[in-house]
Amino acid sequence: MKKRSVREIAEFVQARVVGDGTVEVTNISSIQAASPRDLVFVEDEKNLRLALKSRASAVIAGEFAASKKSAQPLLLSTQPRLAFARAARFLCPPQERQPGIHPTAVVHASARLGRGVTVEARAVIGEGAQIGDDTWIGAGCVIGANVNIGRDCELYPNVTIYPGARLGDRVIVHAGAVLGSDGFGYARDQAAGRYEKFPQIGRLEIEDDVEIGANTTVDRGALEITRIGRGTKIDNLVHIGHNCQIGEDVVIAAQTGLSGSVMIEKNAVLAGQVGIGEHARIEEGVILGAQSGVPSNKICRGKGIVFWGTPARPIREYLKQLAVLARLAKKG
Amino acid sequence: MKKRSVREIAEFVQARVVGDGTVEVTNISSIQAASPRDLVFVEDEKNLRLALKSRASAVIAGEFAASKKSAQPLLLSTQPRLAFARAARFLCPPQERQPGIHPTAVVHASARLGRGVTVEARAVIGEGAQIGDDTWIGAGCVIGANVNIGRDCELYPNVTIYPGARLGDRVIVHAGAVLGSDGFGYARDQAAGRYEKFPQIGRLEIEDDVEIGANTTVDRGALEITRIGRGTKIDNLVHIGHNCQIGEDVVIAAQTGLSGSVMIEKNAVLAGQVGIGEHARIEEGVILGAQSGVPSNKICRGKGIVFWGTPARPIREYLKQLAVLARLAKKG
Amino acid sequence: MKKRSVREIAEFVQARVVGDGTVEVTNISSIQAASPRDLVFVEDEKNLRLALKSRASAVIAGEFAASKKSAQPLLLSTQPRLAFARAARFLCPPQERQPGIHPTAVVHASARLGRGVTVEARAVIGEGAQIGDDTWIGAGCVIGANVNIGRDCELYPNVTIYPGARLGDRVIVHAGAVLGSDGFGYARDQAAGRYEKFPQIGRLEIEDDVEIGANTTVDRGALEITRIGRGTKIDNLVHIGHNCQIGEDVVIAAQTGLSGSVMIEKNAVLAGQVGIGEHARIEEGVILGAQSGVPSNKICRGKGIVFWGTPARPIREYLKQLAVLARLAKKG
Repeated sequence: MKKRSVREIAEFVQARVVGDGTVEVTNISSIQAASPRDLVFVEDEKNLRLALKSRASAVIAGEFAASKKSAQPLLLSTQPRLAFARAARFLCPPQERQPGIHPTAVVHASARLGRGVTVEARAVIGEGAQIGDDTWIGAGCVIGANVNIGRDCELYPNVTIYPGARLGDRVIVHAGAVLGSDGFGYARDQAAGRYEKFPQIGRLEIEDDVEIGANTTVDRGALEITRIGRGTKIDNLVHIGHNCQIGEDVVIAAQTGLSGSVMIEKNAVLAGQVGIGEHARIEEGVILGAQSGVPSNKICRGKGIVFWGTPARPIREYLKQLAVLARLAKKG
Repeated sequence: MKKRSVREIAEFVQARVVGDGTVEVTNISSIQAASPRDLVFVEDEKNLRLALKSRASAVIAGEFAASKKSAQPLLLSTQPRLAFARAARFLCPPQERQPGIHPTAVVHASARLGRGVTVEARAVIGEGAQIGDDTWIGAGCVIGANVNIGRDCELYPNVTIYPGARLGDRVIVHAGAVLGSDGFGYARDQAAGRYEKFPQIGRLEIEDDVEIGANTTVDRGALEITRIGRGTKIDNLVHIGHNCQIGEDVVIAAQTGLSGSVMIEKNAVLAGQVGIGEHARIEEGVILGAQSGVPSNKICRGKGIVFWGTPARPIREYLKQLAVLARLAKKG
Repeated sequence: MKKRSVREIAEFVQARVVGDGTVEVTNISSIQAASPRDLVFVEDEKNLRLALKSRASAVIAGEFAASKKSAQPLLLSTQPRLAFARAARFLCPPQERQPGIHPTAVVHASARLGRGVTVEARAVIGEGAQIGDDTWIGAGCVIGANVNIGRDCELYPNVTIYPGARLGDRVIVHAGAVLGSDGFGYARDQAAGRYEKFPQIGRLEIEDDVEIGANTTVDRGALEITRIGRGTKIDNLVHIGHNCQIGEDVVIAAQTGLSGSVMIEKNAVLAGQVGIGEHARIEEGVILGAQSGVPSNKICRGKGIVFWGTPARPIREYLKQLAVLARLAKKG
């Protein structure tokens, strides 16, 4: 933690100070747990009242707070949550990691590591792998042959990356995630009734600024490429099938699953436990409610349109159906 | 396995012997697979008949069996399943593990290990971590800096614990589980359309006697604490989001997912594949049927009340709706 | 990659050549990405047209293509997808792996390893384990005591196998999977309200030619055996509970979950995110649609019959119910 004045923080997060800009803070906090020297944030009047009564030294707030009386200095922003996230980065620099290769790590002689790379205990780096500057490989990770990882990435412990996958810069991968595994594809021998493995020899490409949750699995392409676009955020225990094409700035919550060859366009939002069938397409800006199910080949369209239910339909329609059913059951 | 007389077992599990208490047993079994010297249990008349015909040497049964004729000795209990579970512990002591630190384990010089601790091959114990007496850390586990683990815990192989998490005593964590990972929180920059990481710097506290399934993920708090109460049992592939508050003696079956800031009160039971939205509250003793979905902010209330469906509603209501719908479709 | 003539490939995959059998190919490809020397496959006329315009050197096609004019040689098969999968094996032999035990692997002195076994960096092989000829154990795997693994198996990195599990020949296990973990069973002490662990001391048996996806979990039996039949294919993040009996040539897609004691008969197909309650039985050849839920004890019967919804019902019935509801909501 560093000590920073309200004025310095306001400058960093592009907020406007109301009150004493020389007040110093050293940490961020929730309102409930705030101590002196803490910075908190509020998005509405109710929380502003709580924040002003709390022990926090300064408050980031929406413009609505401009006219309020406050003993603490306020940092006004049109996006207080975003300003708080940035202030957090400013006050709490990322964990210091000792660069270098731990003596118990196993790094293939042909692997190429950039400057400032950290390889923790017992990590394994395969033949021909490349790791960009200042990237951190946590303990127990296994990086396959010819994997290419960009700079400033963070791989938490026990991540496995199959051979040939590519990760951009600033990618974060949480513990236990598996990237580039074989897709689920078989050809059935109609005579014998047995399944034979369909080739799963495509690649996986993950672009810059993607974050991938703990124990999530992302399959390589079968013959082509599975791609996850820049800035996309994926939660824990998500499954991404082979050949999926995921656009930029997509959000996918926990336990959602995508079959093979699904296309998710940019800015879509998938809530938790959503399931999507093969070759379905979720167009730009669509929102899928939790547990909804999109059948194979189906297209969901419309920026900001929420779909819900299985099979997924526009939420207004679905809620009306639920209401009709409830009414009938009451009568019946 | 130890050899024990029926009388010794009955004393340990607080059962009443009918028949020859000197008969000795050495193992537990299902009725189908029972060999001589095996102890089995039954909860109803049908299984009692099968047990009495089996090769088992002794039978734990409910009080209903008091009047039955039996060649084998009976151990009568009001809770035969519980008595059997206790008898199993009595007959089959937990796997003997050689205490000590395997030479391939990597234990930070500042970590503090209690007496009788086992650290298996290739486990990594971080800076400042504390491990209580007689705790077992399986092969390949990665225990982050300043993690605090109580006594008599069992961590199966390849578990990852993020820095700062706290586990109580007798906690069991199955292979591949990830504890204390970052929650899924972002602030969107409305101008650029990009997501920035919201700080995930809170803690994770897991109380005594909790069991956590294989490949389950539990996120740390964002600014505060994620807490799992004493005696709670969590199955495989479950997701617990940041800031969740889970009470005591809660049961959560496989693949269930909790979004952020969910509250589950004590004695609740969540079946498999349940999904719960942010800030929902499941009150004391509520039962959620498999695959049910609780929307954000919703409260489910009522000891022993079963909710089912998405959105979750009292099961009686839901079943009535299903029946009405089926009737209409038959007519139509 | 090897260079092969169309005639050689046709012989291997039992296809009939139309055109120049001396043309040589070296690789497989999708139609979109095809380069010269690539082999592609098509199952319908539309893709045939695309394939014939592509740069591919040869095309595997169904018999329907016999009468088409083509500059490239055709390999005609009644099962073109299957023929292509086999051609892929013929052209792209599995990754060469250097047999031997990596110096950082930890192999118990009592373990028995066959000829040609590979044990990669940091893998751990427990007391009394047996590994068959030519099996590959990836980096970071933990193989418990007395585990028995057949020949020609592939275990990707960071897999955990609990003590005593048995795997047949040619079993493939993807990264992070956990096999043989404790089932989820407790006996509740009605007086104290606390759960006590029910014994989970049964075994896990996985037969030949099974493939198991990344981060999937399969529990051992409680008192008996969990069994997965020959040739069954299981996707990522699937949960198989204790005592489940899964037949031969079953397909289970990602994130599906089976409670305890579920029976799945041979040739059944379970789509993604399906949930099945305790003691349910899915009979031979039944198909369960994505996200469907089968209640405990329920039986689904009928070769080729598709069930959908929760509770799962024949799809024709379910679709009719959905249609009726949509109609009523439109009126209402």
